[in-house]
Amino acid sequence: MRIYDIISRKRDGFELTDEEIHFFIDGYVKDEIKDYHASALLMAIYLNGMSDREMVSLTLEMAKSGDMLDLSAIDGVTADKHSTGGVGDKTTLIVTPIVASLGIKVAKMSGRGLGHTGGTVDKLESVEGFNVALSPEEFISTVQKTGICVVGQTGNLAPADKKLYALRDATATVGCMPLIASSIMSKKLAAGSQCIVLDVKYGSGAFMKTKSDAEELSAKMVEIGKMAGRKMAAVISDMDTPLGKNIGNTLEIAEAVDTLRGKGSADLREVSLTLAGNLVALAKNIDYSQARSLCEKVLDDGSAYKKFLEFISAQGGNTEMITDTGKLPEAGIIHRVTAKESGYISNTDAEKIGSASVVLGAGRVNKEDSIDYTAGIILYKKTGDKIKAGDVIAEFHTNDEKGIAPAEKIFFDALTVSDEAPEKEELIYKVIR
Amino acid sequence: MRIYDIISRKRDGFELTDEEIHFFIDGYVKDEIKDYHASALLMAIYLNGMSDREMVSLTLEMAKSGDMLDLSAIDGVTADKHSTGGVGDKTTLIVTPIVASLGIKVAKMSGRGLGHTGGTVDKLESVEGFNVALSPEEFISTVQKTGICVVGQTGNLAPADKKLYALRDATATVGCMPLIASSIMSKKLAAGSQCIVLDVKYGSGAFMKTKSDAEELSAKMVEIGKMAGRKMAAVISDMDTPLGKNIGNTLEIAEAVDTLRGKGSADLREVSLTLAGNLVALAKNIDYSQARSLCEKVLDDGSAYKKFLEFISAQGGNTEMITDTGKLPEAGIIHRVTAKESGYISNTDAEKIGSASVVLGAGRVNKEDSIDYTAGIILYKKTGDKIKAGDVIAEFHTNDEKGIAPAEKIFFDALTVSDEAPEKEELIYKVIR
Repeated sequence: MRIYDIISRKRDGFELTDEEIHFFIDGYVKDEIKDYHASALLMAIYLNGMSDREMVSLTLEMAKSGDMLDLSAIDGVTADKHSTGGVGDKTTLIVTPIVASLGIKVAKMSGRGLGHTGGTVDKLESVEGFNVALSPEEFISTVQKTGICVVGQTGNLAPADKKLYALRDATATVGCMPLIASSIMSKKLAAGSQCIVLDVKYGSGAFMKTKSDAEELSAKMVEIGKMAGRKMAAVISDMDTPLGKNIGNTLEIAEAVDTLRGKGSADLREVSLTLAGNLVALAKNIDYSQARSLCEKVLDDGSAYKKFLEFISAQGGNTEMITDTGKLPEAGIIHRVTAKESGYISNTDAEKIGSASVVLGAGRVNKEDSIDYTAGIILYKKTGDKIKAGDVIAEFHTNDEKGIAPAEKIFFDALTVSDEAPEKEELIYKVIR
Repeated sequence: MRIYDIISRKRDGFELTDEEIHFFIDGYVKDEIKDYHASALLMAIYLNGMSDREMVSLTLEMAKSGDMLDLSAIDGVTADKHSTGGVGDKTTLIVTPIVASLGIKVAKMSGRGLGHTGGTVDKLESVEGFNVALSPEEFISTVQKTGICVVGQTGNLAPADKKLYALRDATATVGCMPLIASSIMSKKLAAGSQCIVLDVKYGSGAFMKTKSDAEELSAKMVEIGKMAGRKMAAVISDMDTPLGKNIGNTLEIAEAVDTLRGKGSADLREVSLTLAGNLVALAKNIDYSQARSLCEKVLDDGSAYKKFLEFISAQGGNTEMITDTGKLPEAGIIHRVTAKESGYISNTDAEKIGSASVVLGAGRVNKEDSIDYTAGIILYKKTGDKIKAGDVIAEFHTNDEKGIAPAEKIFFDALTVSDEAPEKEELIYKVIR
């Protein structure tokens, strides 16, 4: 078998065999197949597509290119949740304790934030003492004991995907549905859980800009997971507007705690319950409505909050910062943003709000950048709300005074104010099972 | 400007600007743009095509990436001839002295043979003493004095093409018309001649397998040359069957000399006169028919032969081997091949005959291989001829006895014998000016 022939076949629109895909991934990881071969093949895939079978085969090969986590030592059903990334997206902090308090085992690897989107690992690390760098053994024993553990991604999880993603990023071959789906799913399959719920966002703040793209990606990922023997669901939700009201690491911890205590924003509660309900339905083999009721119960009776405290404590986090979120570190400067005009907010562009929070110090432009955990934005008003000129509509939290003016410029760019109330956009577009 | 954006634009089917093509070629030669960028872009070009403007721009950038030969010191009109490669194709040895004996200056860089096709440089070097490695100054002064000079390609002629071609060869992006046309033409433009005739072959022994491909390539190359200010013609001729009867280096020298003395095969004479006539028509700004008559005259009255002797002598070749081709070195073994059946030869597959000659030692499989100048094949009979079982239909010349049996197997594979005479295939399909 020769990589030249594999490239030729994909170039000419043929379907690659499982053996050819194995040959490519195996050779690429071993550096026997070069970046220039891989980038020609990726462009041919980008332009000529992949069948579902090729996509599943590619995903499995990438998953098997590194460690495949063995969660069999854990009693009970294992569950994982993955978000395609958004602004103000702290659902992992709410969904995982809900699910875990219903006896399901959550073994989750999370990423860091990049660009305008945040990452769960950063948020958790903003709690004093919280440790995301556990060994595989500690990871499994924590899940077994507490029912929940969240760690950063280990170095050798789907290394083929890591290497290919970097190449795609350099050669304009990222935005290709089968490649996106197989990249995400290779890591999820390697992470080992039996039940997986995907939180797929669409809109300005999301990787997928349209509903139809989000739906296509969701369908492909669900298909891959099922063909690999996992129980799958994908919840497609709106990310034109940030989720909840807080953006930034400690600020999002505080808002998640509010929600776990029954006080959070309605949209955040709804998306969290939809994700949790779907995961519980898969794990317990029950109807969604039945599962959803169970989730509402443990959220409302404080069980999920109690589980969250256990989880934070088990990974070394200072729970005093949770029981009293006033003890979370706070930014040195709090700048109030006032409305320039009166009317209804008809748009709160999530990507721009995310970018404004990065300017304030809450995020990274490059992977190596450090972040200010206390920086961020609190949105007092967002899409659909009525505002009056002079009202305080947001708070900027930062330790860098120079960031305030540019962040405010981006913030007002993100806002559209109209005379009439906008039509309400549905929060949950669709669930694919 | 970023290579990422250039790849994206070509990926999405947009036309690249001259500035973008310059940025790509310049950066690639300087190694600032990597092979993996270039191969992604080449695959996008392969699948999405290039406009004529892009193709001309790419050709000029590749030509300008190295030395651009300045032939202005030569008095008179400069002319070049390029063949896309064939089997038994010794027309350069006949066309150049015809043209030069009409006062046109032929400054030609030639290649070596590879695979089943031969190269003019090898053929000339099979004449004792002939030197193809002249300095640019010697090259120009020889053209000026003798009217003709043929050298090997210098190292720094269109280095961008050399680097890109090697990458295309590794990434299945060779067979793409605008890339083939710009690759050939970048070297021709850098070589500096004002008038260029392209000898484009189609058929089993040619790079282009069909008439329509040969025609498309010819049209593109003529277009590029004209847009770069050169006078252009392309002659499209048949290479299903080897040209003439001799294949192999000294054997082809001998056959070319026969033709220059008025004794050669009709097909070889016809293709040579068509190429020469077109080149003379361009150089003298006259009708093809008028130019063709001039060519026939200098071929038939011995002027072209005399010019050939001057040319061989000027580059150090032993002209005794030309005046008496019996003095050319000869192979140790001459094996007569006899017909197995009676009938008409309806096909003489040129690619296979070429491969048989390589097995006998006449050609190279890899660039580094050495060749046996005396090895090759003489075809006594070819397509259209009537044969009788037991007739000697060919001679194998070799110094390696082991090659004879496998070469004979390939030879008979190449031959199709039928009961009826085949329809005559036209030798010259079309001329594009």
